[in-house]
Amino acid sequence: METTKGVLIVCDGLGDLPVGGKTPLQRARKPNLDRLAEEGACGLLHAIGVGITPGSDTSHLALLGYDPETYYRGRGPFEALGMGVRLEHGDIAFRCNFATVDERWNVVDRRAGRIKEGGGELGKALDGMEIDGVKVVFVPSVEHRAALVLRGEGLSPKVSDTDPHGPGKVQESKPLDASPEARRTADVLNKFTRMAYERLRAHPLNVKRAKNNLPQANIVLARGAGMFERVPSLKERFGITSACVAGGALYKGVASYVGMELIDVPGATGRTDSNLRAKAVAALAALSTHDFVFLHVKGTDSASHDGDLKEKVAMIERIDKMVGMLMREARDAHIAITSDHSTPVSLRDHSWHPTPIALWGPRVRRDGVKRFDELACGQGALGHLRGLEVLPLLLAHMGRTKMYGS
Amino acid sequence: METTKGVLIVCDGLGDLPVGGKTPLQRARKPNLDRLAEEGACGLLHAIGVGITPGSDTSHLALLGYDPETYYRGRGPFEALGMGVRLEHGDIAFRCNFATVDERWNVVDRRAGRIKEGGGELGKALDGMEIDGVKVVFVPSVEHRAALVLRGEGLSPKVSDTDPHGPGKVQESKPLDASPEARRTADVLNKFTRMAYERLRAHPLNVKRAKNNLPQANIVLARGAGMFERVPSLKERFGITSACVAGGALYKGVASYVGMELIDVPGATGRTDSNLRAKAVAALAALSTHDFVFLHVKGTDSASHDGDLKEKVAMIERIDKMVGMLMREARDAHIAITSDHSTPVSLRDHSWHPTPIALWGPRVRRDGVKRFDELACGQGALGHLRGLEVLPLLLAHMGRTKMYGS
Repeated sequence: METTKGVLIVCDGLGDLPVGGKTPLQRARKPNLDRLAEEGACGLLHAIGVGITPGSDTSHLALLGYDPETYYRGRGPFEALGMGVRLEHGDIAFRCNFATVDERWNVVDRRAGRIKEGGGELGKALDGMEIDGVKVVFVPSVEHRAALVLRGEGLSPKVSDTDPHGPGKVQESKPLDASPEARRTADVLNKFTRMAYERLRAHPLNVKRAKNNLPQANIVLARGAGMFERVPSLKERFGITSACVAGGALYKGVASYVGMELIDVPGATGRTDSNLRAKAVAALAALSTHDFVFLHVKGTDSASHDGDLKEKVAMIERIDKMVGMLMREARDAHIAITSDHSTPVSLRDHSWHPTPIALWGPRVRRDGVKRFDELACGQGALGHLRGLEVLPLLLAHMGRTKMYGS
Repeated sequence: METTKGVLIVCDGLGDLPVGGKTPLQRARKPNLDRLAEEGACGLLHAIGVGITPGSDTSHLALLGYDPETYYRGRGPFEALGMGVRLEHGDIAFRCNFATVDERWNVVDRRAGRIKEGGGELGKALDGMEIDGVKVVFVPSVEHRAALVLRGEGLSPKVSDTDPHGPGKVQESKPLDASPEARRTADVLNKFTRMAYERLRAHPLNVKRAKNNLPQANIVLARGAGMFERVPSLKERFGITSACVAGGALYKGVASYVGMELIDVPGATGRTDSNLRAKAVAALAALSTHDFVFLHVKGTDSASHDGDLKEKVAMIERIDKMVGMLMREARDAHIAITSDHSTPVSLRDHSWHPTPIALWGPRVRRDGVKRFDELACGQGALGHLRGLEVLPLLLAHMGRTKMYGS
């Protein structure tokens, strides 16, 4: 069988509940998504399983064919990879914020006023420390965001966050199991936090910010400890080359973890203002040089977390145009479109409700579904899929799988 | 609950994709199949799993309730069993062709002109050899087909085929893992191949064929190495007696492996010319003396591999008559009809697309489906079944299962 190209479009937090009788997907004008559903086969997707509310990290692992039960070791490494950090096998990575604390380490601003200069200068003051034989790699990203990596022997990801995740004091990291590795890691992280405080509060940038009455970025809050371990890539497992077009660090990070090439798209912000046309152009370019492209759109989720129905509908209509462009230009490819989880605007949070999925392309057995929404897709011939079934199904249509048996 | 009889009808390669807007099932006139669907419950079947293209051996194991992950050890033993060979635990079995090679062992005809005399005489020349302490059992079947069994200590099925599977030279069998058993088995197979060549080319039948300008059956090509291991029978696992009505050796072999009685039906050819009426009569007779009958029809798959839409439709219409007869005569039985996999005529090969399934009988909860085809069954109350679920579901309807818990 000849191979075809494949595209997996993930619209983050797309699935929803009705508000005033209709879900955002049912409200949006989306001729291309509906045509994709009508010409294709539809279903509902449980990224992890029935009644399980997926996190963004675990659900993306599953959608890309990696069982989170085996491959999930915490979010930190994905964030770090997505920020471009080169991780080594065994590294413990954290997702960090520059934040503002008072003298008693009460958190005054969890994002240090979303520090506009970014943490570039400040990061340099923290990168390259050595604590009890552990090397510290500290890499700032946009605004207050950064990644912290502890590299050395005898470390463990089983440690609690220093981030209080809300009002309160900076937390002391604690070991989450009885191993000496967890104790040592928590200890190193606590030492790092104190050393970072000392260096940051004296930093010229913070002195200047104080003068200008801006919140000082005088501490680092760490969360989401995870251990990085090398895993077999998509190329190794399925023989396909692959590329990722995404704005958010997490999605890039998961993609990088499974061996995808990250395509940098100016204007892909991972927010509702993202340039979806630029992303479609980048995805199409990537498709000409790769077998498989993963295209992530974050805005639907952001709007949902904000409880903003209007913005979610608008975002879906923007996605519709992007999908129309892909359908026109990637006519021989197989395209799957779905979401990592529902994020109902009425709940403002991820939920367990399954999310619609549609598969389109020359070898798809069309069903009778005519609209891409939660209700219509429930009647589709794909039935209820699990996240881990999505990539195998797409690869089968792409002619990339082998017979099981003979 | 009183027990009922049960019939599982497998129409090989039945599922398909639309050609000119309709699948073969949607084109065929099939009043009995549609009545079975209308009076029964329908669904779609993934013999192995979503997005997995099943081989015929693994899918039949699953349909008969044997997980191929546990019970599949290669195709050879099934072919050998289906040809009537009595295997012993630990035997390594191969599926073989008599073929024609030139002096440099280039394969000139992979089937030795489908040697009409059959390999009976030739097989005697090869059966009973002993090579390095390994006993050779060689059993010819119809035309060019045969089974080779290596019996002895320290053997492994992890060896490559000598069959080039197309133009080219006879291949040297190679061990597929680092074990001494695999090395020894490959070595014995290679020695057998050389010895067979020496004996066959001097054989009077080949001398005669050469005179008559017919291709000589001067070599044996082996493929599909598998180890035979005794497994608990259907009788041992579920307490049911069972019988198989099939033409093809593979299907008989899988049935024999799980302990079914093989019913010999004159005119059951495993081809599109098979006498389906005779098969129905044989199945009904078997049903009077057995609890469960497995009835296999190959023609739908053969027509699909040939890309012959018309023949596939005709085959479905012949199956429809056979099913009508079974429904009339086995009124109190539960009948399940499905396929081992789709073989779309447009792809001419097995595919991952799920295949329709319908279940009929007194304890079936009827759904709203009125037609037995890929689209209609996608709306059925059985939903998406996996191959391993089919036998348990049928057994439950037959009153042959126990409550789980109390």
